[in-house]
Amino acid sequence: MQRLKDLVEARIAAWCAGLPALGLYPPMAYLLQLPAKRIRPIALLMAHELYGGKAEDVLDEALGIELFHNFTLMHDDIMDASPLRRGDATVHVKWNTNAAILSGDALLVKAYELLGRDPRALRIFSQHALEVCEGQQLDMDFELRDRVSTAEYMEMVRLKTAVLLACSMRIGAALANAPEADVERIGEFGERIGLAFQLRDDLLDAFGDPQRTGKQRGGDLLAGKKTWILIRGLEKERADGLDALQVELRKEAGSRNVERMIEALGRSGVRAEAEALVQGLETKALEDLHVMNVPMERKAPLFVLADQLMARTQ
Amino acid sequence: MQRLKDLVEARIAAWCAGLPALGLYPPMAYLLQLPAKRIRPIALLMAHELYGGKAEDVLDEALGIELFHNFTLMHDDIMDASPLRRGDATVHVKWNTNAAILSGDALLVKAYELLGRDPRALRIFSQHALEVCEGQQLDMDFELRDRVSTAEYMEMVRLKTAVLLACSMRIGAALANAPEADVERIGEFGERIGLAFQLRDDLLDAFGDPQRTGKQRGGDLLAGKKTWILIRGLEKERADGLDALQVELRKEAGSRNVERMIEALGRSGVRAEAEALVQGLETKALEDLHVMNVPMERKAPLFVLADQLMARTQ
Repeated sequence: MQRLKDLVEARIAAWCAGLPALGLYPPMAYLLQLPAKRIRPIALLMAHELYGGKAEDVLDEALGIELFHNFTLMHDDIMDASPLRRGDATVHVKWNTNAAILSGDALLVKAYELLGRDPRALRIFSQHALEVCEGQQLDMDFELRDRVSTAEYMEMVRLKTAVLLACSMRIGAALANAPEADVERIGEFGERIGLAFQLRDDLLDAFGDPQRTGKQRGGDLLAGKKTWILIRGLEKERADGLDALQVELRKEAGSRNVERMIEALGRSGVRAEAEALVQGLETKALEDLHVMNVPMERKAPLFVLADQLMARTQ
Repeated sequence: MQRLKDLVEARIAAWCAGLPALGLYPPMAYLLQLPAKRIRPIALLMAHELYGGKAEDVLDEALGIELFHNFTLMHDDIMDASPLRRGDATVHVKWNTNAAILSGDALLVKAYELLGRDPRALRIFSQHALEVCEGQQLDMDFELRDRVSTAEYMEMVRLKTAVLLACSMRIGAALANAPEADVERIGEFGERIGLAFQLRDDLLDAFGDPQRTGKQRGGDLLAGKKTWILIRGLEKERADGLDALQVELRKEAGSRNVERMIEALGRSGVRAEAEALVQGLETKALEDLHVMNVPMERKAPLFVLADQLMARTQ
């Protein structure tokens, strides 16, 4: 895992070093060089090695995926008016909105340049790139809607988060000439751990240890963010004729009693339900990995990746 | 020309009709269906027929180029804070900035989808897509700078406007299996008429007949927009120790005497110089077309296109 991360970081650093120091390029280099886990490019390399390929041969595609991911971050941060990204100023704050729009566009063009070199990679990438935009659109739509179902929320997370992980792994496997069925299966594996990852993140917001997550306990609840647990909590409350969550949500964000909301989510069984859902996804993902017709020792890194994503800072 | 425009319009209409009625898609359909000249996709089809191809076979690529062009319009209108596009509300005004960012992104993805089907088209498109972003970056930079040279201005116009016309024609020719040298030559032709087109537009702003251009006489000068003639006018003034333009530019935009600026540009010979420059580009472009090793009757449509672009509403 560390070996692959080093390869990815070196490729990103070399790419950034080659960028002009003016115009469109400094915001790209800035965002790309903020500390990051590089999960997607690492997953691409792992999937490639799983089928006997050499990571060094697909570093361009791994970089392309990371550029695409950073394009989505740069534009999403404008749309969400986020001041911070990984603890540092976002591009639209450090430069301005126009710079973030245009550098983001240029990142997308650069991503296609790298992913367009091999028609197999391009075909897979094209299938998924639009879904990521659709996920962001749903996410924004949800903020304006009164009611969102858990199924809608899952679909949004699938599109916005899980699909790109799946896409990365499918590209890695396809470029190592994996059988078509395996390319599909590794995509399903990626999608499931991507979904599990986001749902666990939602859970940790309310039930994690702030000392370990490094975030304010219940920050999403305080903001009234429509996460899986809040959506499901409201559903159950309505069904049971209760209103503890509603009462808090009607208050100004600043004066919500988060502990009371967390309590209500525990009492109504939403916490347990979310944990079961995440575990179900994780179990299914590990099964996907088990049935792949590849020597077990080659699968080890993917189990490590899955483990890392699933456990997350708790 | 009308036959090709009809083909393009029909392909755009069919594509828009197939879009979902929600989310990312209505802004795309709206912008694409505003009345437009469709010069770039028509040029692609013409270049294809010039080398014996059938326009019907490359409608996907022609559509892809028009989608890319509309992506640039949607994002440029945000960056320039333009309220109107072709007389109608821009997307960021009719919807909002977020919708214009995200629908624009999705248009770029869709453009790649269509242009990625043939590796020859993709290769040419990849060479040029980033240049268009660089052109917009320069355009924005120039607004903030005190002094811009005519050479810098020409380079900005080349990147922002001329390159995409050249790219369209190169793709059309390449997909008809034109010899590599001809693909390059038709690109140069496209670049020259693209440049001439923009410079003539600058000239018409000051010296055209408002009744025929449909625009306010000297609108660019009133706004202090750094066009070729204003840049060149200021250069000559400085060299000659004069200051008629400077005096007007120091005033508020609303109280500038545009007639005095136009007079100064005529007196110092800038008008004549600009006309000579445009004519030089046009002559060279027509020569490019003459030397191409293709039967004359096939070239006729391109002469018509060039003529139309060069003459422009005067």
